[in-house]
Amino acid sequence: MSFSKVAIIGLGLIGGSIGLAVRQDLPDCTTSGYDANPKVRSRARELGLANVIHDDPAEAVKGADLVILCVPVGAMSDAASAIAPSLSPECVISDVGSSKRSITNGLTEALPGHTIIPAHPVAGTEHSGPDAGFATLFHQRWCIITPPKSAPEDKVHALVDFWEALGAMVETMDADHHDRVLAVTSHIPHLIAFTIVGTASDLEEVTRSEVIKYSAGGFRDFTRIAASDPTMWRDVFLNNKDAVLEMLDEFLTDLALMREAIRAGDGQMMHDNFSRTRAIRRSIVALGQDDPRPDFGRVHD
Amino acid sequence: MSFSKVAIIGLGLIGGSIGLAVRQDLPDCTTSGYDANPKVRSRARELGLANVIHDDPAEAVKGADLVILCVPVGAMSDAASAIAPSLSPECVISDVGSSKRSITNGLTEALPGHTIIPAHPVAGTEHSGPDAGFATLFHQRWCIITPPKSAPEDKVHALVDFWEALGAMVETMDADHHDRVLAVTSHIPHLIAFTIVGTASDLEEVTRSEVIKYSAGGFRDFTRIAASDPTMWRDVFLNNKDAVLEMLDEFLTDLALMREAIRAGDGQMMHDNFSRTRAIRRSIVALGQDDPRPDFGRVHD
Repeated sequence: MSFSKVAIIGLGLIGGSIGLAVRQDLPDCTTSGYDANPKVRSRARELGLANVIHDDPAEAVKGADLVILCVPVGAMSDAASAIAPSLSPECVISDVGSSKRSITNGLTEALPGHTIIPAHPVAGTEHSGPDAGFATLFHQRWCIITPPKSAPEDKVHALVDFWEALGAMVETMDADHHDRVLAVTSHIPHLIAFTIVGTASDLEEVTRSEVIKYSAGGFRDFTRIAASDPTMWRDVFLNNKDAVLEMLDEFLTDLALMREAIRAGDGQMMHDNFSRTRAIRRSIVALGQDDPRPDFGRVHD
Repeated sequence: MSFSKVAIIGLGLIGGSIGLAVRQDLPDCTTSGYDANPKVRSRARELGLANVIHDDPAEAVKGADLVILCVPVGAMSDAASAIAPSLSPECVISDVGSSKRSITNGLTEALPGHTIIPAHPVAGTEHSGPDAGFATLFHQRWCIITPPKSAPEDKVHALVDFWEALGAMVETMDADHHDRVLAVTSHIPHLIAFTIVGTASDLEEVTRSEVIKYSAGGFRDFTRIAASDPTMWRDVFLNNKDAVLEMLDEFLTDLALMREAIRAGDGQMMHDNFSRTRAIRRSIVALGQDDPRPDFGRVHD
């Protein structure tokens, strides 16, 4: 089986990119879209993010065999309730949220009897909103699918095929494991970036203007992910609390060791630690998960 | 006055880039070079990083009116001692190190009676070594000069002109203030990046292979600066200990508040904090200190 009508609920960076990618990569598939914000719906129509943009979420999912919820994690259950009345019984309900256990529980409760197959494309930029999307966002990126045990195999396969058609590589895992993995590879990096950017802008001895001027020394890298959508990230931390706190404490333990090495002037400890981190970077570049050009390919002229 | 012969001691990313930039932007100026590593000298000759590459540092600085030490902070004093016997009395001794108080003290002690004007171009990439340099590295980047009170004004001006000729914007400040500013904008970001990359690669519940695969969620950004030269960074933390510990403790205080907000489910606190960090990013981009393209301009296809 494969999907012939995809409904996209939420037309920001990810929802918009799915719409554009389907148009480019799955021309036989039609799309319908909805966003709670009327300005976003209007802009989505101008940009053609879906074949039809509806003003009512229940209208948007009528006749759809795949519904993808692309709203902040905290808005998933309400979005599910809003579409419930007109969902086809055969329809697959999926999403793109960055925490999977709470979404799985929330959707299962909101949509009893429906086929729910959560998913998470590990892709994005620091921009958000309907203008931020583009059709190649998922190319060469991983999409993690966390099917509940009850999910029919043919529908899981269809969702895998859908994401592969959009250029993604697909991996399947348990929702709880997903939440631990993403806590490390995404949530903690964002938390640290939001925090250090806040710290730097509040200092008394160094002005904000100096922080901005001399940011090329490394700080500017952190400002990119700290420019991500505040509502999306608030919801991630509210919904993946346990895994985030667990990984944050691992990081804090290591940072305390590093602090002590600096205090004690332990150059050997620092050199040993700083040497092994290069290997990880090399592997990420070798596996096509980052740009091989120096400085992420930033323009130097 | 302006410089007619520049000696570059240390031919890695920064020293090599200075050599290439002088050839491109100051064609009337000749360059000589030296590196302690014979393989680097040999490669520097092939790449033409300076007009002449010497096997002896004392030979390299003969007749130079500007000497720039481009070695790790911990190697500055030894490099200064090695060139001392053949320095011209009129010569300006400068450097490119990332901590300025300890270098100023070390060079003043190693080269009594000489004119020492420390400098720090806030520029670089994660790559190091003679092959990493390029002529436009300093374009639109700030170079901070920290002249001691005793430095003759005409020589300070000549050094400002030199860096501006290489495309940099120049700011002058006190060495201690430099060290605080750079602790925030460069040293703490590197320390955090080295630490989190280490934490992620040591976890038991999430494999290194998973960390690499799903790094596009944010983690990969940190791996870039964590791939920087380990010796250079060990020396920075050994030589800017006080400012680094001071700023690290500010960050740890803020991170503890964020941890408590997550634990308590305080979404309002998170949203308030995550909202104000976007403004800093916008200012950095507006001032030409980062690439305006989404995702640093990474290729998405």
